[in-house]
Amino acid sequence: MTMPRHDPGVTADLLIEALPYIRKFSNAIMVIKYGGNALAGSDEASALASFAQDIVLLQAVGIKPVVVHGGGPQIAEMLARVGKTSEFQDGLRVTDAETLDLAQMVLIGKVNSDIVAALNVHGPLAVGLSGVDANLITADLRDEKLGFVGDVAAVDPTILLRLVSQGIVPVIATIGSDEGGQTYNINADTVAGAVASALNAEKLIFLTDVPGVRREVDDPGSVIAQTTADELEALVASGAANGGMIPKLEACVDAVRGGVERAHILDGTTPHALLVELFTDGGVGTMVVDA
Amino acid sequence: MTMPRHDPGVTADLLIEALPYIRKFSNAIMVIKYGGNALAGSDEASALASFAQDIVLLQAVGIKPVVVHGGGPQIAEMLARVGKTSEFQDGLRVTDAETLDLAQMVLIGKVNSDIVAALNVHGPLAVGLSGVDANLITADLRDEKLGFVGDVAAVDPTILLRLVSQGIVPVIATIGSDEGGQTYNINADTVAGAVASALNAEKLIFLTDVPGVRREVDDPGSVIAQTTADELEALVASGAANGGMIPKLEACVDAVRGGVERAHILDGTTPHALLVELFTDGGVGTMVVDA
Amino acid sequence: MTMPRHDPGVTADLLIEALPYIRKFSNAIMVIKYGGNALAGSDEASALASFAQDIVLLQAVGIKPVVVHGGGPQIAEMLARVGKTSEFQDGLRVTDAETLDLAQMVLIGKVNSDIVAALNVHGPLAVGLSGVDANLITADLRDEKLGFVGDVAAVDPTILLRLVSQGIVPVIATIGSDEGGQTYNINADTVAGAVASALNAEKLIFLTDVPGVRREVDDPGSVIAQTTADELEALVASGAANGGMIPKLEACVDAVRGGVERAHILDGTTPHALLVELFTDGGVGTMVVDA
Amino acid sequence: MTMPRHDPGVTADLLIEALPYIRKFSNAIMVIKYGGNALAGSDEASALASFAQDIVLLQAVGIKPVVVHGGGPQIAEMLARVGKTSEFQDGLRVTDAETLDLAQMVLIGKVNSDIVAALNVHGPLAVGLSGVDANLITADLRDEKLGFVGDVAAVDPTILLRLVSQGIVPVIATIGSDEGGQTYNINADTVAGAVASALNAEKLIFLTDVPGVRREVDDPGSVIAQTTADELEALVASGAANGGMIPKLEACVDAVRGGVERAHILDGTTPHALLVELFTDGGVGTMVVDA
Amino acid sequence: MTMPRHDPGVTADLLIEALPYIRKFSNAIMVIKYGGNALAGSDEASALASFAQDIVLLQAVGIKPVVVHGGGPQIAEMLARVGKTSEFQDGLRVTDAETLDLAQMVLIGKVNSDIVAALNVHGPLAVGLSGVDANLITADLRDEKLGFVGDVAAVDPTILLRLVSQGIVPVIATIGSDEGGQTYNINADTVAGAVASALNAEKLIFLTDVPGVRREVDDPGSVIAQTTADELEALVASGAANGGMIPKLEACVDAVRGGVERAHILDGTTPHALLVELFTDGGVGTMVVDA
Amino acid sequence: MTMPRHDPGVTADLLIEALPYIRKFSNAIMVIKYGGNALAGSDEASALASFAQDIVLLQAVGIKPVVVHGGGPQIAEMLARVGKTSEFQDGLRVTDAETLDLAQMVLIGKVNSDIVAALNVHGPLAVGLSGVDANLITADLRDEKLGFVGDVAAVDPTILLRLVSQGIVPVIATIGSDEGGQTYNINADTVAGAVASALNAEKLIFLTDVPGVRREVDDPGSVIAQTTADELEALVASGAANGGMIPKLEACVDAVRGGVERAHILDGTTPHALLVELFTDGGVGTMVVDA
Repeated sequence: MTMPRHDPGVTADLLIEALPYIRKFSNAIMVIKYGGNALAGSDEASALASFAQDIVLLQAVGIKPVVVHGGGPQIAEMLARVGKTSEFQDGLRVTDAETLDLAQMVLIGKVNSDIVAALNVHGPLAVGLSGVDANLITADLRDEKLGFVGDVAAVDPTILLRLVSQGIVPVIATIGSDEGGQTYNINADTVAGAVASALNAEKLIFLTDVPGVRREVDDPGSVIAQTTADELEALVASGAANGGMIPKLEACVDAVRGGVERAHILDGTTPHALLVELFTDGGVGTMVVDA
Repeated sequence: MTMPRHDPGVTADLLIEALPYIRKFSNAIMVIKYGGNALAGSDEASALASFAQDIVLLQAVGIKPVVVHGGGPQIAEMLARVGKTSEFQDGLRVTDAETLDLAQMVLIGKVNSDIVAALNVHGPLAVGLSGVDANLITADLRDEKLGFVGDVAAVDPTILLRLVSQGIVPVIATIGSDEGGQTYNINADTVAGAVASALNAEKLIFLTDVPGVRREVDDPGSVIAQTTADELEALVASGAANGGMIPKLEACVDAVRGGVERAHILDGTTPHALLVELFTDGGVGTMVVDA
Repeated sequence: MTMPRHDPGVTADLLIEALPYIRKFSNAIMVIKYGGNALAGSDEASALASFAQDIVLLQAVGIKPVVVHGGGPQIAEMLARVGKTSEFQDGLRVTDAETLDLAQMVLIGKVNSDIVAALNVHGPLAVGLSGVDANLITADLRDEKLGFVGDVAAVDPTILLRLVSQGIVPVIATIGSDEGGQTYNINADTVAGAVASALNAEKLIFLTDVPGVRREVDDPGSVIAQTTADELEALVASGAANGGMIPKLEACVDAVRGGVERAHILDGTTPHALLVELFTDGGVGTMVVDA
Repeated sequence: MTMPRHDPGVTADLLIEALPYIRKFSNAIMVIKYGGNALAGSDEASALASFAQDIVLLQAVGIKPVVVHGGGPQIAEMLARVGKTSEFQDGLRVTDAETLDLAQMVLIGKVNSDIVAALNVHGPLAVGLSGVDANLITADLRDEKLGFVGDVAAVDPTILLRLVSQGIVPVIATIGSDEGGQTYNINADTVAGAVASALNAEKLIFLTDVPGVRREVDDPGSVIAQTTADELEALVASGAANGGMIPKLEACVDAVRGGVERAHILDGTTPHALLVELFTDGGVGTMVVDA
Repeated sequence: MTMPRHDPGVTADLLIEALPYIRKFSNAIMVIKYGGNALAGSDEASALASFAQDIVLLQAVGIKPVVVHGGGPQIAEMLARVGKTSEFQDGLRVTDAETLDLAQMVLIGKVNSDIVAALNVHGPLAVGLSGVDANLITADLRDEKLGFVGDVAAVDPTILLRLVSQGIVPVIATIGSDEGGQTYNINADTVAGAVASALNAEKLIFLTDVPGVRREVDDPGSVIAQTTADELEALVASGAANGGMIPKLEACVDAVRGGVERAHILDGTTPHALLVELFTDGGVGTMVVDA
Repeated sequence: MTMPRHDPGVTADLLIEALPYIRKFSNAIMVIKYGGNALAGSDEASALASFAQDIVLLQAVGIKPVVVHGGGPQIAEMLARVGKTSEFQDGLRVTDAETLDLAQMVLIGKVNSDIVAALNVHGPLAVGLSGVDANLITADLRDEKLGFVGDVAAVDPTILLRLVSQGIVPVIATIGSDEGGQTYNINADTVAGAVASALNAEKLIFLTDVPGVRREVDDPGSVIAQTTADELEALVASGAANGGMIPKLEACVDAVRGGVERAHILDGTTPHALLVELFTDGGVGTMVVDA
């Protein structure tokens, strides 16, 4: 018998707190957006391993996680490597054919593969997909000036539902294609929201590198614990949200209005923040509900 | 956002510790012997409510609990009420027809009903059974001198398997019957062991009022953390076990030899000892394995 | 070759008469109320064995019987044994906590167990239930003056449907509980009617000790062969029904209005009256239809 | 209430006798050979209607009847009509191509159709088949001298099992075909036995115009109530069986040795002899068991 | 390696043409009317074998063919053989009881059996039915003056759907019966149309001995490639269709109005016209669509 | 009515030839290796579109294609683009970490994506996989001198079987990983053979740019139509096979010995060679059988 590492009273207390959530979330689909930033640091391997462990634990207790990832820093690195510079417009990279080709290779052939490999160290759990697979994401040209940057025209969740019903974790690179087979690069936050709506997910969770949404953009103490779609929309309209946060907030608004129970914005750099959020009464970060 | 009541690091730690057990025990059948003593004290209602909460939590995370209960103190109380005295022989009550009748009414109509009612406050979760139902327990006369005291001749687990597959918790009163329909009172520890073997259960757990099995009967510090069927058998043979503990030890030995993975003897009077035992690395009480 | 005991022409005739009923009733749910009086006589064991044989035969030809039983005489006997007297009000026993406790023990632990045991001599066919099991019967307090006497607030037939679909005969003791787990004693005739409605049963059959409903309470020749809910209601309103018959008549009215095809009141003391009623063109006792 | 036409005691008695057989034979496949003679008399229509009623009743109580029929008299009549005479050899009609053609038309297009139509007056219950359908019966040439007279080379029961599982009564005309599609006329008794074996039937029943098998061919009082395959074989070898009975006896022997529980030879001209045989303790005619 | 018998370019071309039809028709029910004339010629056996090969190929690629056949010439031959002459009225044979008997024997016992046997040379593929089987076709008396000539009152497609779902090809002789079991002879073209409607078939195909429907009855060059129900109706009304063609045209009109996608009238004497029609862009004969 | 483009006789002939193959291959799994060379030419887009059309047709007629692809020329192009040169040893590229990274991006993010996109123009038919997904291919280090070049240690076909059972065409990039998550580049011919064996495929088909295997390496007229595993093994041992052909021949040998019915080496540059091979009696290229 190993000595218990924690006080039995605290242990019992936490179990009684956690078990009802485990029951509640059994079979719940949760879409988790994993940011490219988290993968780009010096500590990349261990951060990825810790994320993989959390996803495996969720899956072990009957939750059906769906991972959506970005890869901005990794694309930038590849462009630099081949000596190609990019123009940005409204925070979106202008994507010519060569850039699209490289972005696609980095997102699908590198970032997606790395996440799948980190999960599959634990068993045959994950399968990587892009929006091209089984026509998961049909894309529209957003704006000719931006080149091959796409909007989500439609999500066909069939392949996702089949995979999660077989205990597989889909990991999605956010490349979509139109009916002629032309591919587009799409904002990963937007895809995460659209996928969560299409799956009628229980939760949409953004793992970012900030502790939540601030009421005042410059005041770290103004993180909002719980808010509604309406309030978030007002926040974006007021200009009080910065560039990278805007698509996340819009995705949260669309998702909870589209049938997702709750959306969350957490600090994914705190180890296991995902577990603490899901299985304790006191959440972390910002939670968004519909009304 | 409620403040977390416990340190997030400890919380994450305990979750990472508990989740693999929850995964491991998903769909596992566990036979839990709940002693009549636990129900007889002044604090009866709250002890029963706490036990019911634990069983409901187990069921919520996919475990399939089967409860077996005794009722010695309650039978004694009823016999006193109608002014009937009993003779005991080798620790077993001599059971004439009138005693059997009263024992049956107390066990099935009172103790069993109370446990079922306590569980069903949480929903339509439990169904009470005796060994007579669907011929669950076929009994043999143990010894003519003991009257209607039975041994377990056979357990037909069909009804139990059907109920647990439907998410129902069977609660078993230990009255059995022979082929002619004559009923017998059977030792509840023995029934728990036989039921666990017949179900090929993952675990057999005795909730008693002592912290485990002692190597020296008079030394509270000699509680054994882990032992084997062979060692327990030697312990019984050596006379180092007291009366009420003997049928528990024999049931543990029979169960682990009959295919049950592990048997446990815990102090059921410590609140939620069952949860701490099941979901942390450091167990409590005595664990018995086969070899 | 044994000699046929009956004339082959009569035999063929009866078979041709019975077989269409057997076909018609295949898979039909029938709720059979078995009165406590039938169990209380000197001939108790043989009456019970004969009843058990009939139920087993019904089940053998594909009918799904559900048995509801009372136990008035047995409760009275137990109360006498512990020296407790009861007050009655409007034909209903005033039930204090002690009386409830004893009634529950007698109904669940004695009468129910005896019926189940008599059926299970023929195989693992029957399972005893009370209204507490799987929250089968939710009860309301009827009237504070009557103590723990309940009305049927709701019947959840899930557990019954599962058991009958597995070839099990449920045998129901008429104790129900409220949401807080408090139990109540409920009139067995009322429960039989409510269970029949909840199951949308083909038939509700009362096995009593009289040959049917009389048009004139004192005229044995005035037994009604077939009647309607409206006529029965008028009969009760007119005062022409005696005390013990009233809840039966009300249960018949409610059942046929609640979707039960036919309700019957038969003399259960005539051996095998149940079989003759079900499988021949000429019925026995009183049959009630909706309009 | 109609007056019961029979004494209630006798009625209960017969029901208690019949119900266990009904239970026992639920889902049992029974192959019933219906002789062409039964169809040829002046009373043909009413005999056929009575037979159809019995088959419908069997099917109604869960038995799965399979009917095999002959048509000797009807073929003879047709041959006479077109002015064709036949030669017989060892009791078997020598069958040239024209005779085969006419036999096939009579058996499939007339006798089979009439039986199916009589059954289907009661609902869409029966489907007529010949051995050609779904290659049910593969035939071999018996003997060149006999022309297109076949032996059973193989029975493929697939189509029969599908039909009976759908509640359909197959009615089989005993024409078979070889691999090249050439058809043959086959003895109907032989086919009945082979079909019963291929189906692993519970019973093979010959409805003939005699009360059973006689130990002494000329002694009506020597009808055998129960016998074994070995004894029947000896009876045939001893020459004590007449021509038309021999293929029946051989079919009985082969069937019980091939896995059929019991074979029966009954007088089908006694109305409803089939029902009396199946559902009472005292059988009629001759019963054959394996050892 | 065998030398390819055809130019690989042509081969690839035809495959690319045929494969989409094979995909499209997978699981499609097609009702094929096979005329008695096709079976009556000197070349009968080889025409039947070629037809059987086509049906087997359809079935092999997942189409569900249902064959309906006539037998006029064969009935006429049989009537001649027994020296019976028939009267015709409006192109319909007056059918007395004896004629009906003979027609039934010829259609069910001869023509149907021959088609089934030709198909089953390829395996246990086909089962012969008449409208009597499982009450497939309920018939009405058409006109007392015509004797036992029936109209289709109702088609119960249950048995057909079961057989085709098991990979069986039903072959239907067009004898129907009324509720009393009286049989009638029914026009085979009419039955084919009614069966196609009842099955909601993809196609109804008439294999005739003419190349299609002529706009001018005497002008072989006026064959219509594609037409509508309305146009066909006008054609019949105008008197521009000859006797035998009228019931075919009416059946086409009823079928496409009753939910059948397309009806076709082909020259069944061109070998494999059925395959060329189904699997190439250029059809043969006349195609009928609804509007 | 369109005019038939081909002679109806030839058309019928080819259909009768093709239909049995379509029947035979219904539900058959076929592993098709599509070479990177085919994708590298000036005509890349149209070659890929033609290949995609063939795969879609196979899938349409019930075949279950699994595509394995290489990408040598595309990897070489990428390496040149970033200014990296490679060393080769025994015809295998020496693969350092940077080369592996780029190879992975090209194979998974570019070639695989392009094939999937070309297929999915026809509907949601294809899903791209690498050996990392669901641990499809576990790899071993081949030889330290070659860097991250892997051998196939194991193939887990579970994810492939699930996808093909859902009508999805898996497209496999030949990157595998070991248990620690390290990825390796693996020869695509070898992977194709191992996948075919693991799937117990009906066929393994190499689409190359040569017309088949030559008996004499320099004699274009010596292409072998049909051969055995033993003969191929001798051919390789004799040195009569050139470098790029060797892994194909070894994969054919291993596959047919591992349970694959037939392996084929075809000239994939002839349009629709795949269709002509599969659906006509005269094949193209070289066919390999086991013994």
